[in-house]
Order: sequence, then structure tokens, then C-alpha cells
Amino acid sequence: MPQSEADTALSAMLRPRSVAVIGASEDASRIGGRPIAAMLERGFQGAILPVNPKRDRVQGLPAFASVAELPETPDVAIIAVPPALAEPALRDLGARGTRAAILFTAGYAEMGAAGAEAQARLLGIAREHGMRLLGPNSLGLLNAANGFYGTFTSSLERGYPTPGPIGIASQSGAYGMHLFSMARDWGLGLSCSITTGNEADLTVGDFIAWMAEDPQTEVIAAYSEGIRDGTRFLAAVELARRNRKPVVMMKVGRSALGRAAAQSHTASLAGDDAVTDAVLAEHGVVRARTTDELLDIARLATRRIYPVGNTLGVLTVSGGAGVLVSDAAEAVGLPMPPMPEAAQAALRADLPFCAPQNPVDCTAQVLNDLSLVSRFGEAMLGEGGYRSALLFFTHAGGAPSITPRLREQLRALRGRYPDRLLVLSALADPPQLRQFEEDGFTVFADPSRAVVAIHAMGRFGDAFADAPPPVLPEVPALPLPATTPSEAEAKRLLAAAGIATAPERVCADAGAAAEAAQALGFPVVMKILSPDILHKSEIGGVLLNVADAAAAREGFALLMRRAAEAAPQARLEGVLVAKQLSGGVECILGINRDPVFGPVAVFGLGGIFVEVLRDVALRRCPFGEAEAEAMIRSIRGAPLLLGARGRPPADIAALAQMLSRLSVLAHRAGPGLAAIDLNPVFAMPAGEGAFAADAVIEIAEHAS
Amino acid sequence: MPQSEADTALSAMLRPRSVAVIGASEDASRIGGRPIAAMLERGFQGAILPVNPKRDRVQGLPAFASVAELPETPDVAIIAVPPALAEPALRDLGARGTRAAILFTAGYAEMGAAGAEAQARLLGIAREHGMRLLGPNSLGLLNAANGFYGTFTSSLERGYPTPGPIGIASQSGAYGMHLFSMARDWGLGLSCSITTGNEADLTVGDFIAWMAEDPQTEVIAAYSEGIRDGTRFLAAVELARRNRKPVVMMKVGRSALGRAAAQSHTASLAGDDAVTDAVLAEHGVVRARTTDELLDIARLATRRIYPVGNTLGVLTVSGGAGVLVSDAAEAVGLPMPPMPEAAQAALRADLPFCAPQNPVDCTAQVLNDLSLVSRFGEAMLGEGGYRSALLFFTHAGGAPSITPRLREQLRALRGRYPDRLLVLSALADPPQLRQFEEDGFTVFADPSRAVVAIHAMGRFGDAFADAPPPVLPEVPALPLPATTPSEAEAKRLLAAAGIATAPERVCADAGAAAEAAQALGFPVVMKILSPDILHKSEIGGVLLNVADAAAAREGFALLMRRAAEAAPQARLEGVLVAKQLSGGVECILGINRDPVFGPVAVFGLGGIFVEVLRDVALRRCPFGEAEAEAMIRSIRGAPLLLGARGRPPADIAALAQMLSRLSVLAHRAGPGLAAIDLNPVFAMPAGEGAFAADAVIEIAEHAS
Repeated sequence: MPQSEADTALSAMLRPRSVAVIGASEDASRIGGRPIAAMLERGFQGAILPVNPKRDRVQGLPAFASVAELPETPDVAIIAVPPALAEPALRDLGARGTRAAILFTAGYAEMGAAGAEAQARLLGIAREHGMRLLGPNSLGLLNAANGFYGTFTSSLERGYPTPGPIGIASQSGAYGMHLFSMARDWGLGLSCSITTGNEADLTVGDFIAWMAEDPQTEVIAAYSEGIRDGTRFLAAVELARRNRKPVVMMKVGRSALGRAAAQSHTASLAGDDAVTDAVLAEHGVVRARTTDELLDIARLATRRIYPVGNTLGVLTVSGGAGVLVSDAAEAVGLPMPPMPEAAQAALRADLPFCAPQNPVDCTAQVLNDLSLVSRFGEAMLGEGGYRSALLFFTHAGGAPSITPRLREQLRALRGRYPDRLLVLSALADPPQLRQFEEDGFTVFADPSRAVVAIHAMGRFGDAFADAPPPVLPEVPALPLPATTPSEAEAKRLLAAAGIATAPERVCADAGAAAEAAQALGFPVVMKILSPDILHKSEIGGVLLNVADAAAAREGFALLMRRAAEAAPQARLEGVLVAKQLSGGVECILGINRDPVFGPVAVFGLGGIFVEVLRDVALRRCPFGEAEAEAMIRSIRGAPLLLGARGRPPADIAALAQMLSRLSVLAHRAGPGLAAIDLNPVFAMPAGEGAFAADAVIEIAEHAS
Repeated sequence: MPQSEADTALSAMLRPRSVAVIGASEDASRIGGRPIAAMLERGFQGAILPVNPKRDRVQGLPAFASVAELPETPDVAIIAVPPALAEPALRDLGARGTRAAILFTAGYAEMGAAGAEAQARLLGIAREHGMRLLGPNSLGLLNAANGFYGTFTSSLERGYPTPGPIGIASQSGAYGMHLFSMARDWGLGLSCSITTGNEADLTVGDFIAWMAEDPQTEVIAAYSEGIRDGTRFLAAVELARRNRKPVVMMKVGRSALGRAAAQSHTASLAGDDAVTDAVLAEHGVVRARTTDELLDIARLATRRIYPVGNTLGVLTVSGGAGVLVSDAAEAVGLPMPPMPEAAQAALRADLPFCAPQNPVDCTAQVLNDLSLVSRFGEAMLGEGGYRSALLFFTHAGGAPSITPRLREQLRALRGRYPDRLLVLSALADPPQLRQFEEDGFTVFADPSRAVVAIHAMGRFGDAFADAPPPVLPEVPALPLPATTPSEAEAKRLLAAAGIATAPERVCADAGAAAEAAQALGFPVVMKILSPDILHKSEIGGVLLNVADAAAAREGFALLMRRAAEAAPQARLEGVLVAKQLSGGVECILGINRDPVFGPVAVFGLGGIFVEVLRDVALRRCPFGEAEAEAMIRSIRGAPLLLGARGRPPADIAALAQMLSRLSVLAHRAGPGLAAIDLNPVFAMPAGEGAFAADAVIEIAEHAS
């Protein structure tokens, strides 16, 4: 469906000129009554059109017996009737020309197979009439700015939100409204809050895209259990990134990997949650671990200061807090470089027993001489050049004997450095907190929470910075065979894409094997070759350290015998004789098809690193060599490739090239490719290349 | 100093009958004025005796010109005068018989060498008179129950705490008072709050010990940058454990390891922070990562429900929140076992579309039928038997249309299961929150924070449970040589303690070497033997895979030559010829002397596991085989010992025995032992033992 049509429908849902409420109730505590009561209370300016065959008036408004009798075609309809009535209502609305419906009605896909069928029928009706659906089984949505409350959440009993820049999109209704309510309780300004329920049609991603273009929304907070359409979702977060709107997201749960993907070795190495993690990071979405963290990040993001190359300077009245903040910054990976030497000397001259490095401890002396705040702050932002500063003033921030003078100092600092992210950790009463906030300082009681939020702003900043587009290697399209190819064929296909394999020959008889071994140089590896035997070592189909021609001759016979015994039906194409590589570092490179995000590349070291330690890096395909190298360097075992323990550094450039080529290959191959498994790949010493010693290409069973 | 004397002094500091304020000020905003103002305001019932040579009265109280003129000997004195006056004041107080002093005065060890000397003089005066000191450079302490405010913190400008069960002891003044202020802002009840400053005398540990016996304190929250006296600290937390008082602690910073300890290989593997981590866990202290977490745990702990063998049942109105909570529980390692099958069937019969496993999702239907709360809750606590339950009711907990009926249901559940830890995740206004709290439910807005706190309660429960004392192996005392012994001597000493080494012989000439190799069986390992060469492989002093007698003969000459070239001064005792073990898993066992906690055992796998991945387990010595086995199983690479990748399982029992013996040996050896390094140790297949192939024993350079 074209973007513009979705846009129109979503705008109709969030900024309608008229809304019909199917199942409108006089009782403001019922699901058909709550939206009307809320809209009346919040002064919604559009037309509210209650539909109820039993009443002339609902909550003081004229009511209509049916959709057909409505005096105008509503922009959006809220459907708050049982399933049996929802279907005809939707049909009537479609016929009437309504293009958007919000379905509170439950009892669909969440209730098993019959419900899923009913849901499919709803979707069919909607498609037929070019209508877009929110839900079913949705708690609805709200727009704080225009007072449109298409929701029956009881959370409104405790108050309405202040209009503001944060938009919330949540798959879960109850949890989405929990988020909304916490945000309201914190006093955060909200643009809209949407819960997508069963997502028969519209998803969290669609609303992220809408909010990315919505002038009222500056910061997007999202919650999802499972991303339904990877492509749409990624387009949405990319749109947000282009528009410099940060997306902070809670993505919960780890669903089992698709069955097909699990058939590959590497597939079982990383659950789809690790893929989600990698994909969100790649697209500049910050993943929050807790509800507080999500709202902390959204709150700080409303400052719209997103440092590029973030660094943290800490000014503190407490050495203890300085240590605590340093621990927290290191834990998230936020750099805290030291102050320049000259600036340190100047601070020491100003206050002999200060700690001027970073954290800069201006000691309790600051309470006697508040002008230290500007002098020290100036040194840190001017000479230290920190992109972000955390100022720990604890209860001094709230003590009436200190606060007014402190505020003066801080305002001056804020004025001189408008582009820096300035955060206070202080304890104060709400009116004082509001003053600091108005002055441009976001205040956190817990300094560790401040650090996590500051770090997130830097991640947004880096994501928004104009980075050169990735340089993808030129890789010819893989002519994908109809069925899973043999090892030799797989290697031939990969070689055509520039992926180097160990020198090897396919041998049809023992004599040829001996000759090939002689030509390649001893020792050699010998492997049975059959498109029907994927995991050769499990049947004893691999011989290592074959040392001379006689052994190669015997090896041929042995492999053929083992294969015939273990897999009598298998087509045997002979034996592959390959030079046995040594002196390299064993790696694993692979491709798995994620059901949401498509082909994903996996990199890890061989053996225990992958199998015991699950030490792998993941990235959605395709990507360039720079990204590949970053993946390689990100694993815990990377020092082994970089020259730890007296080894020569491995040829990382060749490895990165191979990984990048593999990713482009997989991307171009389309859904017919289920998996690629290069295991082992030998990363030779720098300058000597990287070679795949084994290769498996798996074709999807039901490629579309 | 005997415990009772410290007790008396600490009681004098926190429950004095009389307090002198040296440097008393009329101005309630000055450091000599704040304590008096606070005590007057809070109705402190003891005598307040201002000392000020310039005034007759201070803040309405009769003032005295000097300590000598005081009408009675004060139980405690607050010293709020500059350093030059602090010393004579302390002397006068000592002469007068005062046994406890609180030193606000700064300008001591925190200010460099001269300050440290002045601090030592203060301590000398105190010792001379049998006085105990808090500080210097302390923000002081307070006792909320009796209104004793021996502190000048400006945080009191925003209010006084409610008396209650939480005691705070913090080394950092400003951060300690930050903690105190946050606790007060949260409405938590406090017994006392102490900041120990420079800890010239009394430490955080001393106050933990005092609070462990204080009837007003039920929960202890502590903050420390560096633990000054490991023995006293551990005695304190053990006292708290015996008295079933949970200790939650923030320990920040990572100081560099002592120079001596860093000389050993294994010493550099784990900073002292990892030692602290292990020691705190061993003694049942829960380490908090953030300020919120520290206060969350303290707050929940005031329920005094500490589950043994904690399990979590989750009852939720939101499937989304259920997934989120499951993620959080898995992240901290809190088990969420499923409901029994029969109970699941019964819940399904009650509410067909519930999710009855755990999390138990009673869906929004509960809002229509609140009796589901008792039925589902009853099933979970009765049949599910969960020790803890988290009930996610989000805004339903605060919606006026629901809350009163929900509260009724919850109270009934609370009454039936008084021993269970019941936690709500809900959003409500303060009066409603107070009602839930009064009903016995602790309420968290963020469900993830609730999970972390619930998990901590289980850790306290397990720590408080009567565990059998560890069974330590009988190990003869190590007759510690005066200087670092050679490898052969080290192995002999270890063998006497029952620590097995690979069969080996010391050879004085090439002929003996060939003969020994023949007798031990090939291949053998040969190593140069000298007390002056600790790290043999660095000079090429180790030969592996020596395959026959001729090679052994040549090897002897080669090793002697290399040693003579690399270390001409070294005493050469010959060559060690040892059977080369194979088929085992290479491990590293070591002992390092932590400057705070004494000998600490380290266990890890050899090679990359220790050197690249820093994958080690630590434990303070001594400990039994069960604890050793737990250490071995706790490392990430443990699967390699348990039979991963087709290996035979290693002899974990023999490894655990060796590790436990080593720990007892190190404990008995005293401070003269700097380090032991068994690297590698071969863990052979189960039943075949574990053998140290190399051993280094380092003697402390300046053993006392």
C-alpha cells in the first residue's frame, strides 16, 4: 500500500475532523462510553457521532441508529461492539467511505484459530474498501494536542497528559498505557500515544513512520514484542533518523528462530533477539532495558541536543559520586577523557585541593564560593570541550540557602554553551526542579540513570550525523541452484563472488586423489562429496592430516565406504582433496535468514568461541568492508586475531572483505537462500589472505 | 580494640546523653550552628553544650568558653573548628574523659602528606585517651529516632526523615547524604545515617557492626570507595547476617592492585574489584549498581520477608508486561518455574483465554471480575508455591473505579499467605500507594526494578538460611621458605599438602636427564631449574615434546646454555624432567594476596580463557571442596570441563580438591606468602585426577 494512503489513514486516526463511535454508551465507564467522555472533557473540536440503535442521545450528543444514518462520512470510526457486530459495522463504514477504523473489539487472533479467521475476515473487508485498521484488540490511541481520545484506557481516571513532544507507539495495550501513564505522572509532554493490539493491519512501525513526519512529535518511544514487517519497520526508523527524531524502543521477548533457519549450524548460535539488537543499533534506535530507562531517554531527548562523538565531563561536589559516575560511564562505554594539562593546572591554582582531571571535584568549597561553578564549568566546556556535562550538586540543588545563587551560575553557563548537553544530578522540590528544567537542565536524582540517558543522546547524535553511505563491493549475482549444492559446487559459486577457498580438487577415484594430494602438497584434508550429506563430520566423512600418497589412496576408499554405510541413498560425487591450511586462526562466517529482517551475517572464531561462549557478531546484509571489520573487532575473542599471545596478527582486511562480499551475495540472492556456512575459514597472517576450508549453501525449502 | 569499647563509643555517638559542640555558632547556617539548630528543632532530649569562647549563649542555650568549663563530661563532642584548634580541643576532651568525637574539620589526609601527618596526630591523641573518632572530614551522623543531629548537611533544609528501620553508613559525606535525602524524599523510614569521612579511626564496617546490634535498625545500606580493614568489615557483615539484617552496599571504583600482588601472573587477571564482588557475594551482602537499586532493595527489605530458594510467580493484566518481567527475571537469574499442570488446567477452566503458565496473564477480564485476582493469586501461591509474587496491575492499581475492590482482593490474599513476598507494579496517587503499602504490598512503577529487588530478597534469604559450615580439608602447614623456592622445591611443598604434580625428576646432568626421561616415558617436558628464574618460558627455558633419550640429552645442554646467557647471575640447580601430560584440559589455579581481604584463590581455564577472555572465578581463602566446585562450574568456559564438543568430562572432583587444598594452604601460610601460580594444571578425564605441571610460589618481600 503506498505510503501516502497510509499517511492519510493514520492522519485520520490521529487528527480526524469527525469520529463515529459504534457501540456508543451513555455510561462513561464502559468501553463505548469512555472515549466520548474523554473527548467531551478535553474539548475535542471535531464532530463526535455516537452510533447506538437504542438511544436518541448519548452523553448529551445526538445519537444515530446505524452507520447508514450518520449525517456525514466520519474520518474515523471507533468500533466498540462485540465481534458479531463488528464485521457488519466495518462493512457499513467501508461502504460509507470511512477510511480508518479503531477496533477495541477483542476475541480475534489472540483467542486461537477461529479468532484468527475472524481477524482475517476483518482485514479482507478493510482491504476491499481501502480502509486501514488499528487493532483489533487495541486499547486505542490518543492525541494530547487536539483532545482526540480514541481509547478506553482507565488510566485517564488519574488525569490527562500535557501536550508535548513525546510520541508513544506500543504493541501491548496495557503496557503501552502504563508507559503513557508513567510519562504523564512524571509530567512529560506527550504528542500522542498509540496501542496497536493484534496488528492485523497497522503496526508499531507504521506509527513510527507517521510520527517521524508529525510536526508535533519530536521524540519517539516504542514498545514491541515482535516486529511484524521488518522492511516497513526499517523504513520507518530510517525516516525518523533522516528527520532527526530519536527512537527509543523496548523490544521484549525472544521468540524461537524459524525452523528453516535453525537447520543451519550458525542459525542456532544466535537467537533472533541478537539480530534485533544488531539491527536496532545499526539504524540508530536505542534499545531501553527498563521502563525508567525508556522514559529517562525520551525525557532527555526532548532537549534536542544530540552530541556527535559524545564525551562526558563530570563536575561534582562529591568525590564519591564522581567515582560512581565514572563506573557508570565505563559500563555503558561513554568516554570521559581527562581535562587538558594546562586547564588542570589552572583549576588547581584556583582551588588547591580540587581534583581537576575528570571527574572534576570542586569539593564542598563550592558551597562557600558558588562562582567556582562558572569558573570550573567554563574550563570544562571551553577547554575540556566535553559535548556533555553531568553536574552533581546533590541536595545543594534544593537547599534554599544555596539554590538561587547556584541557579544564577548555571544559567550563565547554559547561555554560553547552548549546544552542549547539560544534565544536573540534584535533589530538590518540584518547583525548584521545574526552574532548572526551564533553564535548560534536565535533572536526575540518580546520577547513574543520568549517565545512561546522556550516553543514549550521543548514540542518537552519531546516528543523525551524515555518515558516508557504506561502500558495497561489486559482487556478481549468485545463480542460486534449485537444490542444496555439494561442497565443491558451493565453493565454486562462492569463488565466483571472490570468496577464496583453500586450493582443492574434486577426485572421482583413489588414483586421482593420490595425484591431487601430491600436486597440492601434504598434508591434505579429504572429504566425502555429496549434495545429500550436509554435515560430513558426523558420519566420519572428513579425514585430516593425510600425509602421503598412499594414505590419500586409502582415504578415498574409506570415505566412500563410510558414506555408503551411513547414507545408502546419497548421491556420491567423489572426494574433495584440499590443501590443509595451518598457521591461521579458525573463524566461522555465516548467513542466516531472519524471519523479520532477512539475511543476517554472523562472524565468530571457530571452536569453543562459537560453540561454548556464543561469542559472535551479527549484522543485517548487505554491508561494506568497514562495517565487516567493526564486526570482527567487536567480538570478545578479537585479541586472538589482533596478535594476542605472541601470534602474528591475522589478515583482518581479507576477512572483512570476505564477510562483506558474503553479505552482498546473500542480499542479492533473495529469499531462495536459506543459509551459508563457511566453517572453518582460516584467517592467515596479515597479507596472506583468508580461505574458506568448508562451505555449505542451503536453499530454502519453499522459496517463494 | 575490644568490641565492647567500640560499641560504647558508637552508642555514645548515636545515642548520647550529652553533646558538646566545639565551635558552636549562633548562625544556624554555619557548620558549627547547623547541628544545634537541627537538634533544637527535632527535640533532642540530651544536653546540648555549646563551646564558644566569645559568647555566653548560642542559639538560646548557655555556652561555655572551653572544654574545661563544661558543667559535665559530654558523651560525645562535635568538633567544628579549624585544624589548628581541633587538636587542642581533642586533647582537652580526652583529658575530660569524653570517649567519642565527631570531626567535621577538614584539611587532613584528603589534602596530601602534611594533612595525613596531622590526621595521624589526631588519631594518636584519641588512642592516648581511649577515644574513638568519626572523621575527620566527616559530614557527621544523625539518629532520626532520638533527634540527635551531629551533622552539618544542608540536605536538612528540605526536611527531616521519618524514623524507621533503614540505617545508612557511607564513607562519602556528600554521597551518603544524597542517599539519605533520596530516602527521605521517597518517604522511607530511617534509623540513622552516618558518613565516616577520612576514616582515621572508625570505618563503615564499624557502623555496620553497630547497626547489626542496634534494635532500631533492621536494614543496612552502605556505601564505600575502599574497604579499609577487611577483617573488621567481614566480622561486621557476618554479625549482620547472624542477626538476619540484610546489608545492601554500593562499592564503587577500582583501585590498582598492590604492587607486590601485580608481580604474579594471575594477580593481573582480576582487579581487586572482582575480589570485592566475590567476597560480598560470599557473605550475603547484595551489591547495588545504582542509587535507585540500593534504595529499592532497602525499601523492599523492610518487609523482612527473605525467601529461601526464591521463585517468582507473575500475575499480570498485560501479556506485554509479562514478557518484560520474564526478560528481567532471566537477566538477574531469578527462577520463574511454570505452574503445575493441574493448576494450569483449572485456571484455563476458570478463564478460557488466560495464559496460565507463568507469567499468568489474567487479561483485562480481571477489570470486569476482580474476584479473578483472589482465585488466580490463590492458585499461584497455593499450588504454584511461589515464594515471591509480582502482580502487574498498572493503572488499574490507581483507577478510582477499580482500586477499592482490587484492594479488598489483595488484602485477602496477603492475609492467607503472610510469609510470601508480594509486590505490586502499579501506578497510583500517593494516598492509594500508601494504602497498598499498609496492606503489606510494596509498589513499584517500573516492573523491572521490582524484579531486581525481589531477587535481592532471595539472596538475603539464602544468606540467612542455616547453611552447614564449609568442610575444610586437613592440610599440613606449609613450612614457608625465606625466599622464593625453585619449581622443584615448590612442587615438593605442594605435594606435602596433597596437591598432585606430574611425575618428574630433578636432573643435574645430561645423562641423568636421558635416564629420567626414559623412566617417566616419552614425550617429556624439560625445564630449567633455578630459584632466580620465575618465568622460564620467557628465556626459552622450557622444552616441550622431547621425544627420545638423545633429545633429552641435547635438551639439557640447550637449557643450561640459554639460562647462562639470559641470566648469568642465576643459581642453576639443573633441569626438571617431567612426564608430558596430554588429553587433559589445561587450567590455571592461583593464589593472590588481596591488600584488603588477604589470600584469594583464582581459577580459570588455560590459554585464551584467562589471557584474552579474563574468564576467572575468585574466592577468599579458605574454602571447602563444595565451594571450589561451585567456582569451577561458574566460569563461562565450564562446558569444556563438563564434556562439551565431544570431550570426556574432566575430573572436576580432583580439581575441586586441589583448589580447596590450595586455599587452606594459603590461608594457613599467613602474610609471608605473596602468591602461588599453578599453570598449567591438567584436569584429566573423570577419575584420572588433576596434576600441576608447573608451580611458582612467591614469598612476600617484606613479610611482617
